[in-house]
Amino acid sequence: MADATIPDDLLPLLEAPLFAALGTIRPDDTVQVNPMWFVYDGGQIRFTHTTKRAKFRNLQRNPSMSLMVFDPDDPQVYIEIRGRLVEVVPDPEGRLYVRLGQRYGNPDQQPPPDKADRVELVMSIEKVGRH
Amino acid sequence: MADATIPDDLLPLLEAPLFAALGTIRPDDTVQVNPMWFVYDGGQIRFTHTTKRAKFRNLQRNPSMSLMVFDPDDPQVYIEIRGRLVEVVPDPEGRLYVRLGQRYGNPDQQPPPDKADRVELVMSIEKVGRH
Repeated sequence: MADATIPDDLLPLLEAPLFAALGTIRPDDTVQVNPMWFVYDGGQIRFTHTTKRAKFRNLQRNPSMSLMVFDPDDPQVYIEIRGRLVEVVPDPEGRLYVRLGQRYGNPDQQPPPDKADRVELVMSIEKVGRH
Repeated sequence: MADATIPDDLLPLLEAPLFAALGTIRPDDTVQVNPMWFVYDGGQIRFTHTTKRAKFRNLQRNPSMSLMVFDPDDPQVYIEIRGRLVEVVPDPEGRLYVRLGQRYGNPDQQPPPDKADRVELVMSIEKVGRH
């Protein structure tokens, strides 16, 4: 692990519409990993989420997050970003969901049915690891 | 999350040579996610690893493991397996490394330079989640 700088050669992994594997820690101190849409934006990572799901509860107790993205053409090339939840931004119109749906290939993405519960999870970038 | 049964329709995700995202918990209670070769074998998951790396130290303190594999053609289809490290098998000839190298596409896979430190990590399957 180095510092919080994204190496230039790994930046495409954050810019391409690749799914991330996001790790969080459950209240019983076991680990959870889920695929997630994300966007790398102004030195932070943003996810669309809701306040009703396990990951949100996990992060209330332990804000640690780890995001890993690998190159689908060569999965041994990967980036791991470690950070923590630094902000939760209400998103009751589901705007980030729409933006991410578009980023991941659906130009006609509509807001989700649960938009009233939607939030943006903002993750800091504290350490960047690579293979 | 249901019980520890792998749903039939998700079994191909474990049988195909797809990389897993493996989550572990570091000694400072932060989360780590890495891409890993694996094999689903007799109701357990096996990884090749060494005794010299962070993940091995993580698991000495907290044996929790979570493995997530998504379908590269439709990443919203995924399986998450939660379990824990139940056995460490010395593998000083790197046999599991060779087996996994072959599984992941290299029929001429040779043992790794660090074979003397190689171990098999055996992960139990305790809960299986899906999208």
